[in-house]
Amino acid sequence: MSRRSQPIGIDRVIAPRSLALIGATEDYTKFGGRFLHHLVEHGYAGQIYPINPRRETVLGLTCYPSISALPVAPDLALVAVPATALEATIEECGKAGVGACIVVTAQLAEFSAEGAALEARVVEIARGYKMRLVGPNCMGMIVPAADLALSSTPTLRYSGPFRKGGVALVSQSGALMGSLYVQSHDHGVGLSGMVSIGNQADLELCDFVEGFIADPATRVICLYVEGLKSPARLRALAARARAAGKAILAVKAGRTAAGSVMARSHTSSLAGSFSAFETLCREAGIVLLDDPDSMILVAGVLDSGPAMAAGGIGVVCSSGGGGAVLADRMALAGLPVAEYAEGTRARLDADFQRGHQNNPLDLGAHVGSLDFGIFERAIRAVHDDPGVGLLCYVLTPQPLMPQTLECLIAQWQRQEKPVLVVLNTARFAGDLRQRLLEAGVPFVMRTDDALRVMQTAVALREAGAAVRSAAAPAPVAAPRAGFLTEPEVKALLVAQGVAVPQAQACDSEAAALRAAAAIGYPVVLKGVAEGVVHKSDLGLVRVGVADEAALRRAFAEVAAACARAAPGTALRIDVQQMIGAGVELIVGLTQEAGFGPQLVLGAGGIHVELLGDVVQASAPVTPAEAEAMLRRLRVWPLLQGARGQAPVDLAALCAAVAGVSRLAGLGAALVDLEVNPLRATAGGAYALDGRATLA
Amino acid sequence: MSRRSQPIGIDRVIAPRSLALIGATEDYTKFGGRFLHHLVEHGYAGQIYPINPRRETVLGLTCYPSISALPVAPDLALVAVPATALEATIEECGKAGVGACIVVTAQLAEFSAEGAALEARVVEIARGYKMRLVGPNCMGMIVPAADLALSSTPTLRYSGPFRKGGVALVSQSGALMGSLYVQSHDHGVGLSGMVSIGNQADLELCDFVEGFIADPATRVICLYVEGLKSPARLRALAARARAAGKAILAVKAGRTAAGSVMARSHTSSLAGSFSAFETLCREAGIVLLDDPDSMILVAGVLDSGPAMAAGGIGVVCSSGGGGAVLADRMALAGLPVAEYAEGTRARLDADFQRGHQNNPLDLGAHVGSLDFGIFERAIRAVHDDPGVGLLCYVLTPQPLMPQTLECLIAQWQRQEKPVLVVLNTARFAGDLRQRLLEAGVPFVMRTDDALRVMQTAVALREAGAAVRSAAAPAPVAAPRAGFLTEPEVKALLVAQGVAVPQAQACDSEAAALRAAAAIGYPVVLKGVAEGVVHKSDLGLVRVGVADEAALRRAFAEVAAACARAAPGTALRIDVQQMIGAGVELIVGLTQEAGFGPQLVLGAGGIHVELLGDVVQASAPVTPAEAEAMLRRLRVWPLLQGARGQAPVDLAALCAAVAGVSRLAGLGAALVDLEVNPLRATAGGAYALDGRATLA
Repeated sequence: MSRRSQPIGIDRVIAPRSLALIGATEDYTKFGGRFLHHLVEHGYAGQIYPINPRRETVLGLTCYPSISALPVAPDLALVAVPATALEATIEECGKAGVGACIVVTAQLAEFSAEGAALEARVVEIARGYKMRLVGPNCMGMIVPAADLALSSTPTLRYSGPFRKGGVALVSQSGALMGSLYVQSHDHGVGLSGMVSIGNQADLELCDFVEGFIADPATRVICLYVEGLKSPARLRALAARARAAGKAILAVKAGRTAAGSVMARSHTSSLAGSFSAFETLCREAGIVLLDDPDSMILVAGVLDSGPAMAAGGIGVVCSSGGGGAVLADRMALAGLPVAEYAEGTRARLDADFQRGHQNNPLDLGAHVGSLDFGIFERAIRAVHDDPGVGLLCYVLTPQPLMPQTLECLIAQWQRQEKPVLVVLNTARFAGDLRQRLLEAGVPFVMRTDDALRVMQTAVALREAGAAVRSAAAPAPVAAPRAGFLTEPEVKALLVAQGVAVPQAQACDSEAAALRAAAAIGYPVVLKGVAEGVVHKSDLGLVRVGVADEAALRRAFAEVAAACARAAPGTALRIDVQQMIGAGVELIVGLTQEAGFGPQLVLGAGGIHVELLGDVVQASAPVTPAEAEAMLRRLRVWPLLQGARGQAPVDLAALCAAVAGVSRLAGLGAALVDLEVNPLRATAGGAYALDGRATLA
Repeated sequence: MSRRSQPIGIDRVIAPRSLALIGATEDYTKFGGRFLHHLVEHGYAGQIYPINPRRETVLGLTCYPSISALPVAPDLALVAVPATALEATIEECGKAGVGACIVVTAQLAEFSAEGAALEARVVEIARGYKMRLVGPNCMGMIVPAADLALSSTPTLRYSGPFRKGGVALVSQSGALMGSLYVQSHDHGVGLSGMVSIGNQADLELCDFVEGFIADPATRVICLYVEGLKSPARLRALAARARAAGKAILAVKAGRTAAGSVMARSHTSSLAGSFSAFETLCREAGIVLLDDPDSMILVAGVLDSGPAMAAGGIGVVCSSGGGGAVLADRMALAGLPVAEYAEGTRARLDADFQRGHQNNPLDLGAHVGSLDFGIFERAIRAVHDDPGVGLLCYVLTPQPLMPQTLECLIAQWQRQEKPVLVVLNTARFAGDLRQRLLEAGVPFVMRTDDALRVMQTAVALREAGAAVRSAAAPAPVAAPRAGFLTEPEVKALLVAQGVAVPQAQACDSEAAALRAAAAIGYPVVLKGVAEGVVHKSDLGLVRVGVADEAALRRAFAEVAAACARAAPGTALRIDVQQMIGAGVELIVGLTQEAGFGPQLVLGAGGIHVELLGDVVQASAPVTPAEAEAMLRRLRVWPLLQGARGQAPVDLAALCAAVAGVSRLAGLGAALVDLEVNPLRATAGGAYALDGRATLA
């Protein structure tokens, strides 16, 4: 045994050939006992080295007094010692050449400042030995592909043999991993591996995402995220996953303030802006869900069949009432319901009267007396329909359940399109459940989950079009640091081709009169003073100045307001062209740590408050991408000329939004920037006002 | 046996003392066989009369050749004969004095015009004999309170003994009844009775609601509705249920066009306007849910404990990740999360470090090594908190599960506040589930359901304030039938105290000039012609007519437009006062069959299309009720003076809305009426235009 020459690869962390269990014992009530029992019970084929100075053997395995006494350096060591013993243990593992330590020990960075300092020292020690760490504050890993049950979750004991498959999970919550293990086992979801990553002090979420992308067994990767360490890396990995035909699903805590507080105290994660994460997911083709339990079931169904092809969803059910409610909920969720082809209608003709060949199809509405042929023909007809891209069968208590299930299994085995079985019979129909588990057909038991499966299948199919990565912006030189004046911001905008109203800076009434005459009445007057934010509130703005007399009055008032707002500075009042009525938008750029510059585009005026009508994208965007963003706004109809108004100049508007977004080229100098309003009219799009803070 | 002198009461229908099974057989594959087996297996204590001319006994029970051969008239007869034999069978039952027939026979009104005609004849026959009907197209009843398993749903065979309790179901879908029976049995929900009402040809939903309100065993009544026969009766019954301390929950199919199609073909129900049903529920204190399975679980939890008292929700969980996601979802659902009292924080102090005493409380974040005392103290502290009105425990796989469960059961047994157990361990933890079932503690297994339980508990608590019944409107005389002109509508409005702009009818330019001088410029010109709907589109309206010259031009144009729009009629152009800028609303009255006049209030102008910002109430409303409606609009902030505008005259606006609503007094003459816009300004609220159709 000796120090490592290079770090262990993630593939060996997920599928270790050997591992040491510090504190191994036969006592199941202890951490070390649970880990050992689970490892042995699930038939881990690698070498297990129990470490316990007080025992010669445990569970028939030779025990070693310490890590340093091991004959070879193990790939992994499980560390669940108290925090006080953590540094010494990590040091010992490092010396012994351990590949990676799974650090279960908690009450570190998530707990207190002292804990955070200890965590940092432990990482430092490990780095010195080229040893990797998983955790701390994690609950280990469950890797069916490697027959590895390296977790204390008691559910491993009750689950029976692993159900192997293509679903992987990377979770910041260990307890959640245990819970999702149960859910998966219970619903026929086959797993490749689950990793609990805790505080991500060294190895982080993306390391394991990368590992599972490379893992041939994995087809769907589920993420439970509290705080993301490296957004750009996840974006790049998502592209790689898509290229490899693997789906990524995610649930993120911290959508609200309440959830963010919980995430912080749970794994010391700063939840960050949910909207930036949501934007990353949309742009990278990651499907964001709201419920972890459901995510693992959705993943199971996705893993078990082909991707959803063209067309809508075909639903067959045995309860007309259940079908009616499902039809409502699908419509409200915006799910595409298939229109049956003429051929399908013809096939249903003999068994269902006209007017009852609905989608959802209620089998209870068949004609004449019941025989199984009716059910079978109906299921096959809907499954075969060329306009049906996914078949969903909702099985409520009904006659002929076993035969119906066999028919569904047969359709599933064709692997032509996804078949979603909703076993809506609670725990009751134990035999049916067992049959699905044996056949390897994952299922859901609730409509809520069925809807999420359908939404995800559609989202993954549509994701292709949405996936994008913002080009690196061309560098833009920052004029100076600090809070820029309106003219300074406009100069930046004009350089990007964004139109602004004609304007002339004036220092006297006479100059203003000349400027107004040149520009043409009506005009706008704006007092310019460095550092002044709320110009309107301070009386620095006059719009609709109609003629010379009005200009003289307005100039005097604005000049007085300037003197009050910024005493002692030279007078500057800009005379600006007045832009006609139009639709007002707000366009902003922000920096989101790790996520890069974000373009925020929203409805302006009163709609900001009433609608919360805002979309976001990584900056910069092209004009075409700007149009796609505009189409997602609720005020989109206004831009098209709702209520008898002329439509706005869309090309000019998209060019303006794209122009603003290119100021992402300010790079690290950009703190934030906002154009408010950007007024879109039939004749063009104009940045009427703007503010920016540069570092 | 002889004809009945009066109809059987609903109490005897739900709890019959005797019943006849037409077509009784031992063959479980047949309808009549399933009914008989289920009845016998579940220990029905009343008299069963099997009817089968080819048998002497079935399952040891004496068989009779026909209904007419029975020694006494049974309370109920089960009729599952083919449609062709239905009339004769009903006739025979009527002659024999049967109290009510449960008609399983389908393919009637829901199927075809011939079926509808047959259904009508059958009802006629039954009425002649004072015999009641349940169905047709129903699946019977399951009444645990009477040990009555009168349904063919195969789930009755697998369920074991009934789980008796206080939850009742009235369902238009029979298959759904079977499905919900399973869900209830599986989640520890105790039932009083479930009735499948099918096409409601005679006995309808409200008859059974009335029966379950009177039934002492029932505490919560669940409804699955496709089409409601008697909305006013349901409203009155809901008030009676509230007075009796019984909750009503409902799921309604036909929220969307897709769901309405299904409802129609399922039980021949016209789904009607979902918004009218939703309004009825809100005003009557009925909680409307979106998922039938969830409804029965919610009902079970409600039935098992006291109503939610003052305060928020306290959540304890064993997964920090699960807690974080739940915190997000609760916040998004608008659920009130309790702030711990100082005393609670003090109790948690010893076991949880500051910053980890969150709500949700993550038990995993305790200090020091684990012993069960920590869990117990934490659960009790949160349960005891005076600001906690409902305790929710999310049990994911964790240490000490059995002890934790016992602690929760003990808290539940105190019956001080609702205790919601979320058994988030799938089917896995069989022992835990069994223990909850034994202890009689209903539980849910999914976050989706937990959220609905919490939302319902809060909604029922808040419902008191919302419950209202519109007073009968004072009668209003209809001026004439047909499409009213704007002045006619305004006359109706003025009579109800609604302000309209000053106006003078003019037949010449000279008259218009005099009128404008009297009213004051600027003015509005409107051409008036009977039968013309879209005045603006036809050029009949000019606003902002600023002076005499403008008026001359406008008058000529409008006069020409009048001649085009309504050739040959006498010229009438109204000169109106121009009302200043403000917030535009739309107020409408519609008739909804059975629901009575409905007041619809929405944001006007562009907001109608962008926001779909509409609220509804039964008309008439008081000014205070009008204000409550306005507060539910998204444009409410505009009325309060958002963005520097003066607030509108709220008292005048509420009075105007109430005034419009009193036109419900037009009674049957009212087809529809719309004030668009009702302009609310700082100086008052004015009906600027209106239309109405009277019968």
